[in-house]
Amino acid sequence: MTERLAAQLAFLAEADRLKSVLRATPVHGGRKENSGEHSWHLALYALVLADQAPPGVSIDRVIRMLLLHDLVEIDTGDVPIHAAGGMAHGSAARQAEEARAADRIFGLLPKDIGDELRALWEEFEAAESPDAVFAKALDRVQPVMQNIAAGGGSWRDFDVTFADLETRVGRKVARGAPRVWDHVRTVARPFFE
Amino acid sequence: MTERLAAQLAFLAEADRLKSVLRATPVHGGRKENSGEHSWHLALYALVLADQAPPGVSIDRVIRMLLLHDLVEIDTGDVPIHAAGGMAHGSAARQAEEARAADRIFGLLPKDIGDELRALWEEFEAAESPDAVFAKALDRVQPVMQNIAAGGGSWRDFDVTFADLETRVGRKVARGAPRVWDHVRTVARPFFE
Repeated sequence: MTERLAAQLAFLAEADRLKSVLRATPVHGGRKENSGEHSWHLALYALVLADQAPPGVSIDRVIRMLLLHDLVEIDTGDVPIHAAGGMAHGSAARQAEEARAADRIFGLLPKDIGDELRALWEEFEAAESPDAVFAKALDRVQPVMQNIAAGGGSWRDFDVTFADLETRVGRKVARGAPRVWDHVRTVARPFFE
Repeated sequence: MTERLAAQLAFLAEADRLKSVLRATPVHGGRKENSGEHSWHLALYALVLADQAPPGVSIDRVIRMLLLHDLVEIDTGDVPIHAAGGMAHGSAARQAEEARAADRIFGLLPKDIGDELRALWEEFEAAESPDAVFAKALDRVQPVMQNIAAGGGSWRDFDVTFADLETRVGRKVARGAPRVWDHVRTVARPFFE
């Protein structure tokens, strides 16, 4: 029992490092957001925007996915969606690197828990189940809201156009939460004019 | 519909400010933890330590509580548990200030959502239901683990003794997650010798 608990706590101590992984988008005050606080914010998005999820989506499973979805970044770092014209994000090399990170990080846990959380992370990455599609939509729309609040944020840093935003972000948000994108795109648009 | 969604997004934009509320405990690297990333870490504690919860506890409700539990600090700031000998924490004045903050912050939401989240926050604060008792135990034990990882952390800043730790922290952890405290107290003890 103590060995099991020690493994659980070792994983949680390792997870602390996600608070040092920086993202491209800013928080209030202008500093870069880290992936730990981003994950919290996303889970809160799921809780508050539950009425935007299609029928059959389990908000509690979405929240669990969002709590875990960036843990691999402890080893890989974050790749901003708008960096290098959006090409680096989702490459095969990146996926292999993330799988190795998942082996190491979820491997710190007792096997039953590690397998369960790893499966949730893979479901999120695959972006096929209704829960994962909604979770991905939130993961894409939150940085848009952060950039709006900052008056442009990472859009300015990466010379993003409104067409880029529609392609790289809007499609995924619209797939999981269409009414949210309808609203947010109209709020975002003036920042590109 | 748009007005409702705009209110949900306004609440989420306001929640971003929790990432600027600093706590006494450090993260890896030594900087002070903020209450946003702390809330994420706690939700992950609930997910990973689910087998330590007494029968009947809903981990999904615990996670929801932990995502919300510190939002009032956007207005009030964090009061470290070891500051002023532990006296400032939980005072009547503090409770009144937090209730005013909850009025304002949950009041940003559409009424049905605001009422639901406010009720969850009040349940956490009352620390009576099994879900809240387990959530409180996690909220108390995570800073202990952060201080252990930092070689002392806020215990050094506030001249905390092991007896202080048992009184201010151990009792609440032991109430909600007794086996966790049995283990963690033996890991923490050498830092006080």
